[in-house]
Amino acid sequence: MLNEITTCQHIVKYNGYSFIEQEDDIAVESALTIIIDGEEFATMVCSPSEIKELVVGFLASEGIIRVFQDIESIQVDEEMGFAYVDLVNKESLLKEFHSKRFIGSCCGKGRQFYFYNDVKTAKTILTKLTITPHQCHVLMKQLQESSAHFRKTGGVHNAALCTTDGIVITRTDIGRHNALDKLFGYCLIHGIPLKDKIIAFSGRISSEVLLKAAKIGVAIILSKSAPTNLALDLAEELGITAIGFIRGGVFNVYTHQHRILGLA
Amino acid sequence: MLNEITTCQHIVKYNGYSFIEQEDDIAVESALTIIIDGEEFATMVCSPSEIKELVVGFLASEGIIRVFQDIESIQVDEEMGFAYVDLVNKESLLKEFHSKRFIGSCCGKGRQFYFYNDVKTAKTILTKLTITPHQCHVLMKQLQESSAHFRKTGGVHNAALCTTDGIVITRTDIGRHNALDKLFGYCLIHGIPLKDKIIAFSGRISSEVLLKAAKIGVAIILSKSAPTNLALDLAEELGITAIGFIRGGVFNVYTHQHRILGLA
Repeated sequence: MLNEITTCQHIVKYNGYSFIEQEDDIAVESALTIIIDGEEFATMVCSPSEIKELVVGFLASEGIIRVFQDIESIQVDEEMGFAYVDLVNKESLLKEFHSKRFIGSCCGKGRQFYFYNDVKTAKTILTKLTITPHQCHVLMKQLQESSAHFRKTGGVHNAALCTTDGIVITRTDIGRHNALDKLFGYCLIHGIPLKDKIIAFSGRISSEVLLKAAKIGVAIILSKSAPTNLALDLAEELGITAIGFIRGGVFNVYTHQHRILGLA
Repeated sequence: MLNEITTCQHIVKYNGYSFIEQEDDIAVESALTIIIDGEEFATMVCSPSEIKELVVGFLASEGIIRVFQDIESIQVDEEMGFAYVDLVNKESLLKEFHSKRFIGSCCGKGRQFYFYNDVKTAKTILTKLTITPHQCHVLMKQLQESSAHFRKTGGVHNAALCTTDGIVITRTDIGRHNALDKLFGYCLIHGIPLKDKIIAFSGRISSEVLLKAAKIGVAIILSKSAPTNLALDLAEELGITAIGFIRGGVFNVYTHQHRILGLA
């Protein structure tokens, strides 16, 4: 596993008239296998940075742990792309239900969670946090400016944990979900309070992205891109303000508009 | 499960000065659970179109089937989001190895496949197909023009099966891999010859995207976006010409340049 998230590679560029050989920055993609209590749990591909945060956030997202203290030990072999996790509770019930679809008894009514663990771990957000249109634009601009790797390679996603005053921390990954899991892991490892936090995200707001925001525990998610209808159903039910298409001074508010100041 | 891949929803737009309530097209995201021989195999989210193609392509991508004839029967319950598949060979060995990481014996040398089934199913592409710079641009332009849903919602990916003469068929999904699996399913169900085929894709060329192109069996993949280094390593080994950043008359050729006419 490489330790840099970009690498220099030889390419041929066509400039409209002729072909030119040159060096170009390419996003690094590495395989990471997570072993829990000696058993192979999952293999993912990721940008090889903040692997410990990624593993912790991923396990929390999957409902395998709830707090960082549920992990007895974690060891990362960066070279080979393995993370070895020992849980405090070796008989964790949640492991069994991992990625089993949750079939509600009422045929599509009620919460639209489709994985059993989501039902157990996603929580409704009740904070009174508000945001102004100006703050939405400033945060999205800061996210784009902090994305040096994206500008270099065009191939990674960025997720930032913010307050209304600015970005607290940014995480980058070739996988959109990984960028959010790294943020989640950071919050869990460092015990970050989340009532005043916002997530700014470079990718689309899919149901998985929205569920991760809910599990992390933020009330507002900002994106320069589009949401899906399932993400918006979940945002509505989980009390999350979803704001998309933040571009050039305009944006769309999809859910829980009461958190936008200036909106009647 | 809804049958339309977009839906109309009430939103609030901020235009830089004030808030306006309006209707907007949102990409539909539906859960789909695949049951194989009576056992839950996988749950994914997808755009609810061409579900049969998606299931067939997904099972082939995962190495569960090799040809459409490996499936005895397939029934899709679109309303509930379930697909019931019976395999001809109930004792399929490949099912057991599904998503187990393949650990090579030579420490990163040789092929960089990380799932066992990929080793079994990805094949080196040997066709003599060539393409001109003009054809690259025309195909990418046709892909963008055929993407009515993307223009409407900004939230879906498109994959097209092409020849150098133009697009044969386009498939759309909120998931980039799903769009490719729908193409794969289409090819398997209809027995499409692939020697003269090219894939044009709206998303990044990640290792998973590259592996899907190899499994489908095309020699050239075109993208308006960036590749990852692992995708390029695989493209090099599997004999695929990867062309990215096709935008405004220019593009980058990353691997197997001999298929580009005019390149010495």
